[in-house]
Amino acid sequence: MATVIENTNVELQAIEAKKAAKKLSLLTTEEKNEALLIIANKLEEEYKGILQANEKDLEVGREKGYEAAYMDRLALTKDRVFDFADGLRQVAKLEDPTGDILSEWTLENGLKVEKVRVPLGVIGMIYEARPNVTVDATGLALKSGNSIVLKGGSSAINSNRKIVEVMHLALENTKIPKEAVQFISSTNREATEQLFTMKEHIDVLIPRGGGSLINAVVNNATVPVLETGVGNCHLYIDKEADVEKALSILVNAKTDRPAVCNAAETLIVHQEWFEQHIDRLVETFNQNNIVVHGDQFVTSRIPNALPAGEEDWENEYLSLDIAVKVVGNVDEAIDHIDRYGTKHSEAIITENRDTAAKFMKLVDASSLYHNASTRFTDGGALGFGAEIGISTQKLHARGPMGLPALTTVKFLMSGNGQIR
Amino acid sequence: MATVIENTNVELQAIEAKKAAKKLSLLTTEEKNEALLIIANKLEEEYKGILQANEKDLEVGREKGYEAAYMDRLALTKDRVFDFADGLRQVAKLEDPTGDILSEWTLENGLKVEKVRVPLGVIGMIYEARPNVTVDATGLALKSGNSIVLKGGSSAINSNRKIVEVMHLALENTKIPKEAVQFISSTNREATEQLFTMKEHIDVLIPRGGGSLINAVVNNATVPVLETGVGNCHLYIDKEADVEKALSILVNAKTDRPAVCNAAETLIVHQEWFEQHIDRLVETFNQNNIVVHGDQFVTSRIPNALPAGEEDWENEYLSLDIAVKVVGNVDEAIDHIDRYGTKHSEAIITENRDTAAKFMKLVDASSLYHNASTRFTDGGALGFGAEIGISTQKLHARGPMGLPALTTVKFLMSGNGQIR
Repeated sequence: MATVIENTNVELQAIEAKKAAKKLSLLTTEEKNEALLIIANKLEEEYKGILQANEKDLEVGREKGYEAAYMDRLALTKDRVFDFADGLRQVAKLEDPTGDILSEWTLENGLKVEKVRVPLGVIGMIYEARPNVTVDATGLALKSGNSIVLKGGSSAINSNRKIVEVMHLALENTKIPKEAVQFISSTNREATEQLFTMKEHIDVLIPRGGGSLINAVVNNATVPVLETGVGNCHLYIDKEADVEKALSILVNAKTDRPAVCNAAETLIVHQEWFEQHIDRLVETFNQNNIVVHGDQFVTSRIPNALPAGEEDWENEYLSLDIAVKVVGNVDEAIDHIDRYGTKHSEAIITENRDTAAKFMKLVDASSLYHNASTRFTDGGALGFGAEIGISTQKLHARGPMGLPALTTVKFLMSGNGQIR
Repeated sequence: MATVIENTNVELQAIEAKKAAKKLSLLTTEEKNEALLIIANKLEEEYKGILQANEKDLEVGREKGYEAAYMDRLALTKDRVFDFADGLRQVAKLEDPTGDILSEWTLENGLKVEKVRVPLGVIGMIYEARPNVTVDATGLALKSGNSIVLKGGSSAINSNRKIVEVMHLALENTKIPKEAVQFISSTNREATEQLFTMKEHIDVLIPRGGGSLINAVVNNATVPVLETGVGNCHLYIDKEADVEKALSILVNAKTDRPAVCNAAETLIVHQEWFEQHIDRLVETFNQNNIVVHGDQFVTSRIPNALPAGEEDWENEYLSLDIAVKVVGNVDEAIDHIDRYGTKHSEAIITENRDTAAKFMKLVDASSLYHNASTRFTDGGALGFGAEIGISTQKLHARGPMGLPALTTVKFLMSGNGQIR
């Protein structure tokens, strides 16, 4: 019967979060900012305890033989903890979107109408390895007046639990009730799945992690979901592309940080450009250790290219591998992106403005680039401040999501007896 | 194997709609407006054929013994068809939200960023009896540059099919491809359920109808849903409520159009006010044929009141029935609304500004009223023009949804070789 008790706890936590959200919605921006600064200081004060807890997770990770990149995402250092604190101080400086009157008008009968921005209520955050999400997401939620229910990955359970413990300690000296930050300490699937259907208590679920986590949430949740992150991004080099721009953008989009969602995964090249510049292209691949998986045309011209199949077009490599396809025109490139893209970031390299305009108009994605790297799809790079994730959906928020994505609106009508 | 063939057709229709949406996204506002006017004229020209088709539905309805209100919603007249046409002409006059540049800025490296409003793509409309939805929803979808897949109720199948046939005829003389309007002629459940999971081809589902239809879509769809319409609306008469305002708003909110979603379903009354004004209140109920279902306090004071149970607090009556609860303060009223409300429209009647402010701040609903009737939650009444429905969800759109709810945004980045 352990599962039943566990489930009940999760629901009770969500109910507590909802109650706390009401209190939180009444606080001023100053009170919320002060709380963020107090949490930031406390995280720095308690960094040693956090590193100790993190060491337990790292030990388990070493025993389980996790790969180096995964261990790196999991590992905390004094600097990283201090970075979390600085992140909160940055969020304190951001404009508070709640309370903004987005529009106001008066009907002929004298009824006054205001459209006001308000917090969503309770945010459910379901995420994988990185413990920084625990702090970042909490900071953004609290700043926008929302409670948060945190469900992190089991591999970071000790780190996350300790971080939340420290944040709760800090909240005791603030106006924010500590029930506004809930941590699901159970590592079983049932706890996560329970969050999927708590429409009464949770206003939105935000999954952050790999494609399988995100799909599990999207396919099973009845709570509305903000879908983030999977980026099967394409770079299309057109017939009229400038060689230097094309190659430098290719290298940047593929190799700058291959494991992030705005990295390029597929290169589509116009046949004429490909044939004209094949030597420079192959040289670029070789110099940057890029592993080519090509279509038939590509493998017939580049001897060491591996053959690409459906899974190469469909999936993110998140490595120095790249799928390469040759096309006869921009329409074929757009069709390929329509079929395999994840509506994240797509780029065209061309000196022809009409071709670029067509690509930007017809490709369905959050972020379209003409003669620039896909790597700019990022809240920081675009100047939004901290982001809660990059939305690949079309409703509510698209692209990098800042604080306004964590709000909704209310219509407030004031009258003196108006009837219809 | 009929089901399999049916299913394939529905998917093919959705794919056609998606292709048409690309063409539609390239049209100018003028081209879309012209098409709406051509459809409007054609509906008027062909009204006799539409009425003949409607007669077939009415015949089936009479055989099945549908109730009068239902038959009234189903029935078309020349005037009603001409109203559909006028509705399209109104939509043609609305501002086209697509193409708007919502913001633009340039990064330090010279990369130019534009946030542009664009159509969603393909809208799936799942609705019940009223054939006017077929025209209204199509008009709003096309004006905002979207294709639409229409799945109406089986009781209006002949009317809807004929209306779409007429709209298709009209579209032949416009720039809008007729594939932009798809009509699912199958009346089986499988056809509807297939729409629930077509994430590749359909960008949003909008259910319009009763609670069970809406819940079926919300609980089973993986395509994002815009939830509309269920309104379990409350009117709270505070201790300091003005008697005349309270009673006239009560009568309006309950009896003006009891079957619509913004009608009041529960009356919450402060005990002091209730005891002081019970005679006027009972008189108002009696004069307006309002049937009272009350809590224990109410039934002990109003002899002919029926006892109210959970289902009375939970459900919409959509009739002249009303549930009545007596409370000791505004907090109890807010708690009751939190528990049973559907986040649609909630009203407080009071002369105390602080009490009103507390209610408006703490009640979680799309539309909050101070000293006015809940009946104003309506796109037309609030001055938004035609609406596609009233959203009771918090993400993407809340309250009456006009054309902007049928759009999303794209970030367009133009550079000259920028890398990160």
